Amino acid sequence: MEDRTDTLSRNADTDRDETHNLIASDKVDGTTVHASDGDKIGHISHVMLGKRNGRVEYAVMSCGGFLGMGEEYRPVPWDALEYDVDEGGYTLKSDKSRLPDAPSYERDREPEWDRDYGNTVYSYYGMTY
Amino acid sequence: MEDRTDTLSRNADTDRDETHNLIASDKVDGTTVHASDGDKIGHISHVMLGKRNGRVEYAVMSCGGFLGMGEEYRPVPWDALEYDVDEGGYTLKSDKSRLPDAPSYERDREPEWDRDYGNTVYSYYGMTY
Repeated sequence: MEDRTDTLSRNADTDRDETHNLIASDKVDGTTVHASDGDKIGHISHVMLGKRNGRVEYAVMSCGGFLGMGEEYRPVPWDALEYDVDEGGYTLKSDKSRLPDAPSYERDREPEWDRDYGNTVYSYYGMTY
Repeated sequence: MEDRTDTLSRNADTDRDETHNLIASDKVDGTTVHASDGDKIGHISHVMLGKRNGRVEYAVMSCGGFLGMGEEYRPVPWDALEYDVDEGGYTLKSDKSRLPDAPSYERDREPEWDRDYGNTVYSYYGMTY
């Protein structure tokens, strides 16, 4: 499918938590997220999992802030991220110029995570919730 | 603790990381797993996510051990776990007597996570990989 697959396959045996097509949640959390031009835009804080369907519904990026102050969370669809072996992190497949207006929330203002919110976030990244 | 349970129930809608049908990965990790008779059998160490499909393919239980020695990991299908508000953790929907023979691995002997392994684990818990 993708050239990326070849690189991943070659490294599969050496990476403890990133074998084949699986990756450990505790390896995802904390991983840097870059824009498509390589600029660092944040890191994955955590992912939100569907309790019943067992799907990653959002990867929640943590952006900005200092010592926990002013930090913003930006939930993105899992499919909007691509793992980049060269960068050692995820690349957000979206134009960086659109990021300031992307759905975000502050630490103590968690969204409802309902269908409306899902539609808002996914459609922002050109995907269907 | 009963008081805490009641609080959890009452706060279900307002709980930061456990709203509606979603749960945060960093809340899953570390959560206690009980057998169906209520006995504590371990805790969730992490989950293994499908890189492309964004699915939780395994919840990896950590069982036994002391200060990291003798610890065993037991991967189980996400659907083999049920979140139990009263217990404040997950319940493994499998007879405890079958647990000693369940697929497991030691910290430094991570399995291949390939289709064969998936079939082995899932079929042990009566599920299809």
